[in-house]
Amino acid sequence: MSNQVKFLLPEDRIPRRWYNIQADLPKPLPPVLHPGTLNPIGPDDLAPLFPMELIMQEVSQDREIDIPEPVRDVYRLWRPAPLFRAYGLEKALGTPAKIYYKYEGVSPAGSHKPNTAIPQAFYNKQAGVKRLTTETGAGQWGTSLSFAGSLYGIDVTVFQVRVSYDQKPYRRAVMETYGARCVASPSNETNYGRSVLEKTPAHPGSLGIAISEAVEIAATNDDTKYALGSVLNHVLMHQTIVGIESMEQMAMADAYPDVIVGCTGGGSNFAGIAFPFIGAGLRGGPKPRIVAVEPAACPSLTRGKYAYDFGDTGHMAPLTKMHTLGSSFTPPGFHAGGLRYHGMAPLVSHLKELDLIEAVAYHQTECFAAGVLFAKTEGIVPAPEANHAVKGAIEEALRCKREGKSEVILFNLCGHGHFDMAAYSAYFAGDLKDDKYDEKELAMALSGLPSVPEAA
Amino acid sequence: MSNQVKFLLPEDRIPRRWYNIQADLPKPLPPVLHPGTLNPIGPDDLAPLFPMELIMQEVSQDREIDIPEPVRDVYRLWRPAPLFRAYGLEKALGTPAKIYYKYEGVSPAGSHKPNTAIPQAFYNKQAGVKRLTTETGAGQWGTSLSFAGSLYGIDVTVFQVRVSYDQKPYRRAVMETYGARCVASPSNETNYGRSVLEKTPAHPGSLGIAISEAVEIAATNDDTKYALGSVLNHVLMHQTIVGIESMEQMAMADAYPDVIVGCTGGGSNFAGIAFPFIGAGLRGGPKPRIVAVEPAACPSLTRGKYAYDFGDTGHMAPLTKMHTLGSSFTPPGFHAGGLRYHGMAPLVSHLKELDLIEAVAYHQTECFAAGVLFAKTEGIVPAPEANHAVKGAIEEALRCKREGKSEVILFNLCGHGHFDMAAYSAYFAGDLKDDKYDEKELAMALSGLPSVPEAA
Repeated sequence: MSNQVKFLLPEDRIPRRWYNIQADLPKPLPPVLHPGTLNPIGPDDLAPLFPMELIMQEVSQDREIDIPEPVRDVYRLWRPAPLFRAYGLEKALGTPAKIYYKYEGVSPAGSHKPNTAIPQAFYNKQAGVKRLTTETGAGQWGTSLSFAGSLYGIDVTVFQVRVSYDQKPYRRAVMETYGARCVASPSNETNYGRSVLEKTPAHPGSLGIAISEAVEIAATNDDTKYALGSVLNHVLMHQTIVGIESMEQMAMADAYPDVIVGCTGGGSNFAGIAFPFIGAGLRGGPKPRIVAVEPAACPSLTRGKYAYDFGDTGHMAPLTKMHTLGSSFTPPGFHAGGLRYHGMAPLVSHLKELDLIEAVAYHQTECFAAGVLFAKTEGIVPAPEANHAVKGAIEEALRCKREGKSEVILFNLCGHGHFDMAAYSAYFAGDLKDDKYDEKELAMALSGLPSVPEAA
Repeated sequence: MSNQVKFLLPEDRIPRRWYNIQADLPKPLPPVLHPGTLNPIGPDDLAPLFPMELIMQEVSQDREIDIPEPVRDVYRLWRPAPLFRAYGLEKALGTPAKIYYKYEGVSPAGSHKPNTAIPQAFYNKQAGVKRLTTETGAGQWGTSLSFAGSLYGIDVTVFQVRVSYDQKPYRRAVMETYGARCVASPSNETNYGRSVLEKTPAHPGSLGIAISEAVEIAATNDDTKYALGSVLNHVLMHQTIVGIESMEQMAMADAYPDVIVGCTGGGSNFAGIAFPFIGAGLRGGPKPRIVAVEPAACPSLTRGKYAYDFGDTGHMAPLTKMHTLGSSFTPPGFHAGGLRYHGMAPLVSHLKELDLIEAVAYHQTECFAAGVLFAKTEGIVPAPEANHAVKGAIEEALRCKREGKSEVILFNLCGHGHFDMAAYSAYFAGDLKDDKYDEKELAMALSGLPSVPEAA
């Protein structure tokens, strides 16, 4: 360990601007459609759900958007996040590759999610919003928005997928510690929730249902808005501070990545580390390979269809063009709850269509094996989601070994696994299975995709 | 939040030397006694349990001891640890006091414990030791030594108190992730464990029993040594990097503490933050008040006797003079498992006898209330142990408010609570009780203290 392992920026190097990849796209994003009319929507259509500042960020074509100073002040609690050289992992793999990782688990919520929860709460506070609703599965996003709400004095109501609500009471306890109210979804608090419970009283819930419930509350209450933890353009843009910092830290290490790896569920942590590098490439700079790693049990990028689809089960949220498994698709119950979503962020999907990124899928047990090796060699226990990025980086490093290449690999370690040790327990006990989704169900979900006008 | 909240040192300011308070004591520590002969022991008597470097540190009177460069290299993974100004908490309390806290939850194990686990593993590795044994209750120490063992390639066997082993499988999963073997204590792997199980087959275990088992394995195997996570002089000394960094960070904030607060179980995190400041006072510098906060259900400093006692139930470990509740005393099962020990570090006990520190005890529910207020205002969820320090700091800040004084308060936030959300769940559900120890049992335990020769 005689070489430098950690690259830490001084506090005044917290980025002052987010990077908006829309400014550099060779082809613009397809429009967003109204769930009722299926016509392209404008900013006003989103006003019931989001404050105007965030809507303008969603559609902005400006390359850089200033980070408000009060947001930077809160970022200071844990940013700049460290970037490490993974000497221990390299040695264990016997690879000539140089592996670097950005570590976002240093935030109070233990993941990258507060990078967007803080500005979202800030803009809502500024707009006079009293309450935010959101959905959460495993709980990372719900925790982060609860944390942000407590700092800004905004009430937060989290619709947590019933099965997670029952199985993971500890995540609920974190949200409650931050003063948030956590409701099991489907619930009796919304028309949509009641309609689901009427048909299926013991429904285990899903992210798509929880989104519908959170959206309904926001759409029908003047003082309440909705917040989403991934997928949307502005959410991905807030995460670009991860990549902007990493770029400067790689320069400190006197290196530039040949390959960048991130795990993808909705796409936000992947976008955070990758977009600034992709943008630099689009503007004439070096073009690293960009690899998105997704769970084989919920493979939207590798097996989904690039098509217009709803973001929620109740079809109240707008339609976007994305890689989707169909909004009625229910992924098996694997442990990386943050990656269990039927769709992929429109921006990430668009980049995939433009061949600017690659995608690969791995099963959960091989990802846990990768995470355990990482913990033993690097000291940090990754979240189950982050294990997918670790697995992707290891596979690239082993390829380098086979090919005798000393490439530079950079990946995003988006969170620690301290809240997820039940999954590691199950892994050690041999109780984890590599659930395969039902091919018939996927085919049916894909055949049920909505028809939209040709122009879109 | 316009003022600076975080004080972060550059990496080259990781201390180069630990501080040994023994050099500045107005009166030396009483000798350590052999558990068989009750006579003072020398370094050689400890050789079956510890490598000689650590034994020499245990008895050293040098003021400063160099931190080996390879240990500093590992410290770089998370150090220097940040120091924060608690503006949010100050505002919520309406206090004129300025509250600062040092945050040790940034380590991969989530607490201050790796500060000593790393050098202990390093010196053992240097001495050719193949295996380390230790005990753990809630699991913070077991996790940290497992982490250190994985980095240095030393096998680690952790005797975990049976009741924690059964109730907290997630902590065990962390240790196993780091490759350690975790054994429920009392076990069938030692003579002492077997003797306990023979009398009481369903024994729930205790820290004192687990220590005896770990010591027995180390004492009877040539390639195996024992490691302790608190209490001993060298362990407390390793933690002084916390206070040394804090001193420099307080200077960055242009402030010096009037009061320093830490929670005490065995005494290591308290010593870590307090000893460098106490030493500066002993050498003619300012003398802040130093407040040790302990759980009311296990009050060794406030209700224990200052006397020679065994560190373990099986009476295999040496005797030290300390504040003790008696080695047969079993504290009630409150949630701050890291503070459930019958004795207090000899150095901390000695400072209490010399009136260089104060002590106060609080019940767990008032400490959880303090922790929840802290999480809501500062964003970090503290470990149940750290909640005691938060409570102590809040009480000092409220005193300042009553007295109209703007004193500077510094406390050690020794770890995050991400592994301990079950305790927060119980707190929110109203299931936490303020267990009182049994006065009769305490009287009996104290009357059973060993008689030692007058000279000691």
